[in-house]
Amino acid sequence: MKNYKMILQYEGTRYQGWQRQESTDNTIQGKLESVLTKLCGSRTEVHGAGRTDAGVHAYGQAAHFHMDTDLSPEEIMRYLNTYLPEDIAVIDMEQAPERFHSRLHARGKMYRYRVLNSETPHIFDRRYVWQEPREIDVEAMKRAAAELKGTHDFKSFTSAKRGRKSTVRTIEDLRIERVGEEIRFTYRGDGFLYHMARILTGTLLEVGLGDRRADSMPELLAAKDRAQAGFLAPAKGLALMEVYY
Amino acid sequence: MKNYKMILQYEGTRYQGWQRQESTDNTIQGKLESVLTKLCGSRTEVHGAGRTDAGVHAYGQAAHFHMDTDLSPEEIMRYLNTYLPEDIAVIDMEQAPERFHSRLHARGKMYRYRVLNSETPHIFDRRYVWQEPREIDVEAMKRAAAELKGTHDFKSFTSAKRGRKSTVRTIEDLRIERVGEEIRFTYRGDGFLYHMARILTGTLLEVGLGDRRADSMPELLAAKDRAQAGFLAPAKGLALMEVYY
Repeated sequence: MKNYKMILQYEGTRYQGWQRQESTDNTIQGKLESVLTKLCGSRTEVHGAGRTDAGVHAYGQAAHFHMDTDLSPEEIMRYLNTYLPEDIAVIDMEQAPERFHSRLHARGKMYRYRVLNSETPHIFDRRYVWQEPREIDVEAMKRAAAELKGTHDFKSFTSAKRGRKSTVRTIEDLRIERVGEEIRFTYRGDGFLYHMARILTGTLLEVGLGDRRADSMPELLAAKDRAQAGFLAPAKGLALMEVYY
Repeated sequence: MKNYKMILQYEGTRYQGWQRQESTDNTIQGKLESVLTKLCGSRTEVHGAGRTDAGVHAYGQAAHFHMDTDLSPEEIMRYLNTYLPEDIAVIDMEQAPERFHSRLHARGKMYRYRVLNSETPHIFDRRYVWQEPREIDVEAMKRAAAELKGTHDFKSFTSAKRGRKSTVRTIEDLRIERVGEEIRFTYRGDGFLYHMARILTGTLLEVGLGDRRADSMPELLAAKDRAQAGFLAPAKGLALMEVYY
């Protein structure tokens, strides 16, 4: 069995997220597995670097799978791009070392959240941005963001149910920039908890809208209480940009 | 009655083009008229600068309409953007001189055609580009394009039925550039015949693919015969970018 690593793009709009579900194949993982299983004739499992939520997009999701085949990576990639739906694409494929694992070996990830800060809709981007027409104070959000960088217990910033797993993560970079009428939040870190990027964005937006103090982040981190953090920013604005190895 | 000029964006994918049809309201003009008629309570006609085909997009279509109202242009614009489908947006609205006519007063238009010259799909742009994975010789297309600039009878480059109207038009600028994996055709001219931008693009692509000589444009113009020109490039790659007054 050879091990293949691939880089994927997808528009999450139509899907129930990355992770295969019993009751439906309307997931990214399910679509990939069904095409690969057809290609090689035996059940093929695809392992992703992370499980994107329903509606979240990917510019650079990573995944791997094992297959017993003489086809070249280019041939497998072409087959996938021929039979996958038009909102999922493989943009790179290579043979990986036998023990390579897309999730376990990932050193970090980058997510981007796009907010359209305008009253006027941008119709060509409407599936990829969250529109917030009110005035947003980017400088206040940057001050709050500075307190979130680094290694913290992000328990306040996840919807994950109580568990024994550590909720300590490191945010290596958190940039907020205005690009035309858009505000872009870029998160780079060693790992992200369930809903973490979206709750961070919702909380920072509340700061930008004046509903929350910019200097309240240390307090919020210390509370370790999801109920004290901000709203869950809608999935459509979020994209997984890159997985680092 | 006041006269209003507006600038529109729309994604053409779901529509049967600009022009209202008897049998259906699945047109851009029809959607606009139905919202404006609801707003002012009496039948309102919208006149566009040009009739984009089914599937063609607009970043800067211009249109005008008359309405008896005390609402400000901003208020009308906000009402439209609230009730229009999410793939049509008004991005500018102003009161115009009484006699302003969006089509009759237009001095020119700019269209852009986007070709994705790659084997790998670009899923976020898939509704806005035509994908042609084969090698394309941009320099050959530029040589052919140089012969199309200026004032000519473009009868070979229209699907319009035989009529008495002049088919002479002036192409003021025709640029072809490679931007990453994309090839962009930009046409600026005083007017465009039915299907003209798409047949020009199809003909130039045949030159780029080596199926047609770069120096054959004068001959083709002289033939005044649609059958001798190239294929009709698909609607999805085309967008009306701007109308000049």
